[in-house]
Amino acid sequence: MRVLALLDGTLADPDSPQIRVDDLGLMRGDGVFETILVVGGKPRELTPHLDRLDRSAAMLDMPPPPRAEFERAVELVLGNWSGGAEFALKLVYTRGVDGGDGTPTGFALGMEIGTKVLQQRAEGLSAVTLDRGVDADLAARAPWLLLGAKSLSYAVNMAALREAERRGAAEVVFTTSDGSVLEGPTSTVVVVRGKTLVTPPSELGILPGTTQYALFRAAERAGWTVLVEPIKADELYDAEGVFLASSVRKITRVTVLDGKQLPDSSALLTELQDLYESEY
Amino acid sequence: MRVLALLDGTLADPDSPQIRVDDLGLMRGDGVFETILVVGGKPRELTPHLDRLDRSAAMLDMPPPPRAEFERAVELVLGNWSGGAEFALKLVYTRGVDGGDGTPTGFALGMEIGTKVLQQRAEGLSAVTLDRGVDADLAARAPWLLLGAKSLSYAVNMAALREAERRGAAEVVFTTSDGSVLEGPTSTVVVVRGKTLVTPPSELGILPGTTQYALFRAAERAGWTVLVEPIKADELYDAEGVFLASSVRKITRVTVLDGKQLPDSSALLTELQDLYESEY
Repeated sequence: MRVLALLDGTLADPDSPQIRVDDLGLMRGDGVFETILVVGGKPRELTPHLDRLDRSAAMLDMPPPPRAEFERAVELVLGNWSGGAEFALKLVYTRGVDGGDGTPTGFALGMEIGTKVLQQRAEGLSAVTLDRGVDADLAARAPWLLLGAKSLSYAVNMAALREAERRGAAEVVFTTSDGSVLEGPTSTVVVVRGKTLVTPPSELGILPGTTQYALFRAAERAGWTVLVEPIKADELYDAEGVFLASSVRKITRVTVLDGKQLPDSSALLTELQDLYESEY
Repeated sequence: MRVLALLDGTLADPDSPQIRVDDLGLMRGDGVFETILVVGGKPRELTPHLDRLDRSAAMLDMPPPPRAEFERAVELVLGNWSGGAEFALKLVYTRGVDGGDGTPTGFALGMEIGTKVLQQRAEGLSAVTLDRGVDADLAARAPWLLLGAKSLSYAVNMAALREAERRGAAEVVFTTSDGSVLEGPTSTVVVVRGKTLVTPPSELGILPGTTQYALFRAAERAGWTVLVEPIKADELYDAEGVFLASSVRKITRVTVLDGKQLPDSSALLTELQDLYESEY
């Protein structure tokens, strides 16, 4: 089951070609996207996702995404979805066709959530740390590297996941070259120490996580301390729990890191999941 | 004028949608490409380009590009081109649709060459150096970063060109964080010192240039020394000439670097262009 809505307010067939070969989103990975979780007909964190789409587009010097048109496309997908109660809603916004009049391409696509993600939510996953080849100051020093933009140029994120598979793992925790934790290829890292939740700062050139933010909001209200500060990769082994948060995976625990078993965080996972779900 | 040929041996309309929204080339910048110069009906360096497409695909763990089908698509474009005597032929090869049967998407697209490129070939251009945020060993240490693969994830390359424009320049010379010359976003750097041509080694995580290679082949035959070795950005100012080589731009001289006028290399440019053209 998939539902595709275009920015002009029409539905289109996702099984038929809709994109020209000279679209810069295809030719150059030149565009931005968001993936939103929909549960029971309601998109979660829609405004933060649309705000982040705006910020990513600004980092790429693209025209601001037309919010009303994206919201209409979202409504169209929601209204025409007849699949599972939970699904992924992807928003894509590209620079448009090469040499065209500058009109961006945009659409909203509802898609089923893969069984692997559902299994990982329940069972956790094993991850490896991989060097992202950046230092802590690079994002500020070199904004043209688009660190922290959710662009369509995700080939490296996909290659990192294949490297994880080669190493017998399912996910990646990217680190700076000097061993500071960054993010997953499509997730935010959240670490639990006592009654404190920690995630690395976006100044490192990583994406501010919408799911992580919702979790921190709920946790803070429930009396947890929430910190945004650098985390050394070595410190992951000392934590009570290491989690990957993203819209579609929600909060998923890391059970094995670089081949080493982490402490059993299943009770903690339930607690964090309850906190997160309490937001909706 | 554009001509589009698909891998199944058919022509298609480049002004109509040909790509599905869930193609991973679009969704994730997950694919590879080549841009080939065609002059008088003949593609230049076709085999080196196809070989490089193979290498890029292998770096992305994609199935080998089907050479016979790509060659047939190239022939189709050549046979149906009725535009200018020189044109750009783009080969694109993506991982195919998300959740599909793994069949890659591929096509060959003939396109006119932009007037800006023609003007830069004649007049030269001004460039700026920009930190690519990598060190010299990164490509070997972290192959998942796909340094040196010609992938569709080129958003950073495009952002760097916009940064150059903001600085009043037209092109970029990427450097390592410690000031070693890498490449342009879509070109190879070639430096002239006396009767020696120098280009940086691909081990730095840059693309081996097909045009640079053709030039070096011709130059060596004509008695030049050709070197592949690291170049410090500071050394660019001491060179008799700094050039950007790529299929479509051929060999273009850099006249101004980071706002500083470089020595007049117009006579040298003619000499290098003649050498390069002598290969065809």
